Amino acid sequence: MSARAGIVVTGTEVLAGRVRDRNGPWLSDRLAELGIELAHIGICGDRREDLEAQLRFLAGEGVDVILTSGGLGPTADDLTADVVARFQHREMYLDAELEQRIAAIVEPLLKRWRNLDPEAIRISTRKQATIPEGAEVLGPAGTAPGLVVAPAPGRDGAVVVVLPGPPGELHRLWPEALATAGFREATANRSSFEHEMLRMVGIPESEIAETLRIGEERIDGLDELEITTCLRRGELEVAVRYEPPARGAWEGLLGLVRERHAPNLFSADGTSVDEQVAALLSGSGRAVAVAESCTGGELAGRLSAPAGASAYFAGGVIVYADEAKVRLLGVDAELIKRHGAVSAPVAAAMAAGALERLGAGAAVSVTGVAGPGGGTEEKPVGYVCFAARLADGSALARELVIPGERADVRDRSTTVALHLLRRLLRGESADL
Amino acid sequence: MSARAGIVVTGTEVLAGRVRDRNGPWLSDRLAELGIELAHIGICGDRREDLEAQLRFLAGEGVDVILTSGGLGPTADDLTADVVARFQHREMYLDAELEQRIAAIVEPLLKRWRNLDPEAIRISTRKQATIPEGAEVLGPAGTAPGLVVAPAPGRDGAVVVVLPGPPGELHRLWPEALATAGFREATANRSSFEHEMLRMVGIPESEIAETLRIGEERIDGLDELEITTCLRRGELEVAVRYEPPARGAWEGLLGLVRERHAPNLFSADGTSVDEQVAALLSGSGRAVAVAESCTGGELAGRLSAPAGASAYFAGGVIVYADEAKVRLLGVDAELIKRHGAVSAPVAAAMAAGALERLGAGAAVSVTGVAGPGGGTEEKPVGYVCFAARLADGSALARELVIPGERADVRDRSTTVALHLLRRLLRGESADL
Repeated sequence: MSARAGIVVTGTEVLAGRVRDRNGPWLSDRLAELGIELAHIGICGDRREDLEAQLRFLAGEGVDVILTSGGLGPTADDLTADVVARFQHREMYLDAELEQRIAAIVEPLLKRWRNLDPEAIRISTRKQATIPEGAEVLGPAGTAPGLVVAPAPGRDGAVVVVLPGPPGELHRLWPEALATAGFREATANRSSFEHEMLRMVGIPESEIAETLRIGEERIDGLDELEITTCLRRGELEVAVRYEPPARGAWEGLLGLVRERHAPNLFSADGTSVDEQVAALLSGSGRAVAVAESCTGGELAGRLSAPAGASAYFAGGVIVYADEAKVRLLGVDAELIKRHGAVSAPVAAAMAAGALERLGAGAAVSVTGVAGPGGGTEEKPVGYVCFAARLADGSALARELVIPGERADVRDRSTTVALHLLRRLLRGESADL
Repeated sequence: MSARAGIVVTGTEVLAGRVRDRNGPWLSDRLAELGIELAHIGICGDRREDLEAQLRFLAGEGVDVILTSGGLGPTADDLTADVVARFQHREMYLDAELEQRIAAIVEPLLKRWRNLDPEAIRISTRKQATIPEGAEVLGPAGTAPGLVVAPAPGRDGAVVVVLPGPPGELHRLWPEALATAGFREATANRSSFEHEMLRMVGIPESEIAETLRIGEERIDGLDELEITTCLRRGELEVAVRYEPPARGAWEGLLGLVRERHAPNLFSADGTSVDEQVAALLSGSGRAVAVAESCTGGELAGRLSAPAGASAYFAGGVIVYADEAKVRLLGVDAELIKRHGAVSAPVAAAMAAGALERLGAGAAVSVTGVAGPGGGTEEKPVGYVCFAARLADGSALARELVIPGERADVRDRSTTVALHLLRRLLRGESADL
């Protein structure tokens, strides 16, 4: 029986959808690495009774450890430490040593901001240094300390790890949390799970459902695998988790998927198309250039996101206007007039132009109708043309009608462009 | 007493952090518009007992309506309809009419994909047409129907609205869900809440905490306002919710914030800096051009994201290499040699170059060290230079050291660039 965990993300701004929660997913990854099973993530507002309800729910589900994020700031709506103290039957007290440490952190900030009220700072510091008795203190990172709070002596229940809301601060405190006595005792029982991930492109979910049904007949122990499938950004992901003795069933499943879906399976080791393209470019000595219209910079943004991208990302040109396509990329104005700005010939000319103008070894281009306006019967919203080209003249092209709203069309177009570039760099054809 | 709701997002891929949940925040917005109070969002994996636990938890919290998303697909891990049926004490049955409707939707897909197994499709269709007795059927959008399932006759409890996981499908079914008898009866008691949002830039959270403390002394009825503050993408947001009689307290708070933080308050009506820049550009007849290095396309992506951006977004150039800066933007190579690629003079020359090369009326540029490598003592990771320029020669510049990891530096840099552009378009100075 593996240790089980729950996560509570607090914050009215998260509950209200104004801020995207990045901590739940990040903590979920960390727990998986540790072999701790995550049962639930709960999101609630900055209200005492709602946070208490979440803690009670998770405790009732029998988890060994509860991770909270948020509610450690200096304002009155930051009440996590206080709620957790009460939940664990512990008193709050002002930790004078912690108050001094926070004051020392705040001091340089006082110089950076003008006209701050020192009394306001003192009150904030004191609030953040008031913690549950017996808590193990983490950090602080930023000005808020993290806390590991076990149930009061003589009581049973989950240990609560209280972490700050800002993701950078939470990341910095996490290793300290793992090292505390409270966390280690609560999570002593860990199973080791294997995690596998298959990624496919150009295949509907029903085909995988059928493959899994066939697998049930053919593969011994398939039910020992926890399999989840998911459509995401135009790709199909199949995630598989199992305990080591079920390795044979996993290998059977992998074989079956390879047998039935070889052309669609682009990743059997969990790597994303972004990572594969980065590796292909790094290894080739080629720098890549981008020419995009409807994706408006998002394709370049995705290619340049990884650390170290400057080694293989030459740059890009974003051209909406026809004139800019001519001027910045050397696209023939006649070509645009004849075929339209959204057309396969213009996509090809954009890739060739980016390759030449940025002195790159590879180029990829996108031109399309992202919507909501601009569609015609012949070229509806979602119609997008792609081209990829290498310095040696080899090239691939695709055109597609991509379903969805403007943001979806833009996002999925970046995925299609990355796959086209991947196939060209691997010397494959464009067709799936 | 307002109607209360809870949301359950199912999906092991969401729980495991592989997919970002977009449905919770979207549904949260819709509920707020309706004056229905959202108490909790829960995320759990595709496991029967975990979904049941979430439903029980929300029912125990006394919510009137539970919205679920996900788990309606054709694979065996899609079990929401079945779990909800049991929760509401209703049997599952195959709805023959629904089966025919889904089959009609699937038919064109059969032509699009090659080599599909018709039997696999039939099984999938039948699974998706098997629903709880007495359920009101929504859609289908995609191939999965939504469901509104009230408790079985003679039983109390929340109505459960079962929605599909893909955001586009969920959005399409939502208006139908609102129109069902089950939803309308469950949410008959709605308060009308007012929602306000203040956005500030260049101010720490402790200053707002102090302003709220002053407000408690000076403003009658301040405790009738539900106030949450949040740091986000380098901005400080203050969200305020109140019932109409508390309007006077809100006006008092707004007055106090204007009095204490006028230079930092850039939005009192909830508009984002993105929306303000879009409005300023639309109204000016100016198109904007972008020149970026460390943000790698993300600034252009943000400027071009709104529907209708093609009216005012001229395009952009992404230049990592020095040579590209010279070639594509006409930056003087001597200037780069003298000051370095990450410097205020080069940022200014990049903006001027983008303005000229893209024939734009406004331009904004970013050059910086996003990290993790490339930092020096003089120009550490996070050091970023910004420039904005109009065709009439007026210009603003900033330089900053932005804290955080690579993704944070890139993201916050786009926010700073938008603020600089906003101030220039409004004829303000760069200094805060």
